[in-house]
Amino acid sequence: MRILLTNDDGINAKGINVLYQHIKELGETYIVAPERERSASGHGITVHKPLRADEREKRQYAVSGTPADCVKLALEALMPAPPDLIISGINLGPNLGTDVLYSGTVSAAVEGIMAGIPSFAVSLVSHDGDSDFNSAAEVTAKLCRRVHLNEVPPETLLNINVPAVQYQQLKGIKITTLGLRRYVDAVQERKDPRGKSYYWLAGRVEDISAGDDTDIAAVNEQFVSLTPVHFDLTNYRILEQIRSWQLEI
Amino acid sequence: MRILLTNDDGINAKGINVLYQHIKELGETYIVAPERERSASGHGITVHKPLRADEREKRQYAVSGTPADCVKLALEALMPAPPDLIISGINLGPNLGTDVLYSGTVSAAVEGIMAGIPSFAVSLVSHDGDSDFNSAAEVTAKLCRRVHLNEVPPETLLNINVPAVQYQQLKGIKITTLGLRRYVDAVQERKDPRGKSYYWLAGRVEDISAGDDTDIAAVNEQFVSLTPVHFDLTNYRILEQIRSWQLEI
Repeated sequence: MRILLTNDDGINAKGINVLYQHIKELGETYIVAPERERSASGHGITVHKPLRADEREKRQYAVSGTPADCVKLALEALMPAPPDLIISGINLGPNLGTDVLYSGTVSAAVEGIMAGIPSFAVSLVSHDGDSDFNSAAEVTAKLCRRVHLNEVPPETLLNINVPAVQYQQLKGIKITTLGLRRYVDAVQERKDPRGKSYYWLAGRVEDISAGDDTDIAAVNEQFVSLTPVHFDLTNYRILEQIRSWQLEI
Repeated sequence: MRILLTNDDGINAKGINVLYQHIKELGETYIVAPERERSASGHGITVHKPLRADEREKRQYAVSGTPADCVKLALEALMPAPPDLIISGINLGPNLGTDVLYSGTVSAAVEGIMAGIPSFAVSLVSHDGDSDFNSAAEVTAKLCRRVHLNEVPPETLLNINVPAVQYQQLKGIKITTLGLRRYVDAVQERKDPRGKSYYWLAGRVEDISAGDDTDIAAVNEQFVSLTPVHFDLTNYRILEQIRSWQLEI
């Protein structure tokens, strides 16, 4: 088995290195990750400037780009053959519900499934840099063995969030849907020393829809959440209604 | 009616300015757009540094951030009250099928619907900077009047692509699904003067799925495509199958 690890916290982040320690026995494991933190990079790709890939150790590359860049580069230039599995993470911080739209971690996995390769995005539900990633890494390694990779439909990635508790305290795993989160008070205005306004994006999370089935509810109850995520954003339910308007231009 | 215009080509781009000329009669129209081109920024937001908003003219702001930043800032800091409609565009270049995942243009509209505001993303199917945006702007203005905004479900944006032809040559409008595009030969390796490798993301588009119903097919036939796009990425069809695996950790 050939495995590609990437992330958006950067190649030096604790999450990807703990994951590597747990995964490397499963097969030939590559790391191709951003040289620095690229959080909240969304699904950005770098088209206006060239990319560099610095080989730090055998099969480990630091890339001057986004997580999506890393996957493209790994598949098309750095790896001798495509991986059987791509794992993006372990991210420091949850990627739940609507968060996935902003998530560099998830975007790397999207890039993977767009290339036809089964992909996981894995996140630790904690913002504390001192968090212990071992139980999340252990969960990921177990899922690598147990998930029926050949039964996951193409164009579907598995988005996994692991509560930041000891392994024994995890209550199990739930197959979930994406909840809906919003950020309220999202912008803070401040004045610089010259009296001119500037703005910070901030805001606290408000869980709009966190029903029993959602990833948000699962992690709140100390379950690992596993959500199948695809990238066909067409809202099929509304197609016929819009057609009935008989729009003309 | 209060309207917010934004884009990812930057506030000085032709597309947003031609659009403004066609839209401004419909109501009080604001422009809050990036100060420079932010193409392929995906759904990135700026969290590590503060944002500036420079008021260029009355109700027109150039922002030092991404398209998604612009919408957040417009709604929470710059506009006196939320708009009734957000239009992102007119983008120079199509946003068809899988492209929407990378698109700063679409991400601004996603940000709009996440705030509960009806939103359009509008793109011109041309990469030629000298293209005429007038027919696309006219189409957009007509759709602003004719779309039943109150019937578009929350969390659904309308993604509109207009072929780059004269208005009279447009064959009409089709309500479409997102096709599937892939980029082949996506990475080009080169050597710098010191013999070290660097890489360009490149590649030509290959339309994997461009059936009759898709946006890709519609614009190829000189129709305007209108695709309802939502942001619930859960793959519901696979939920039960994954549950049947009875995964344990």
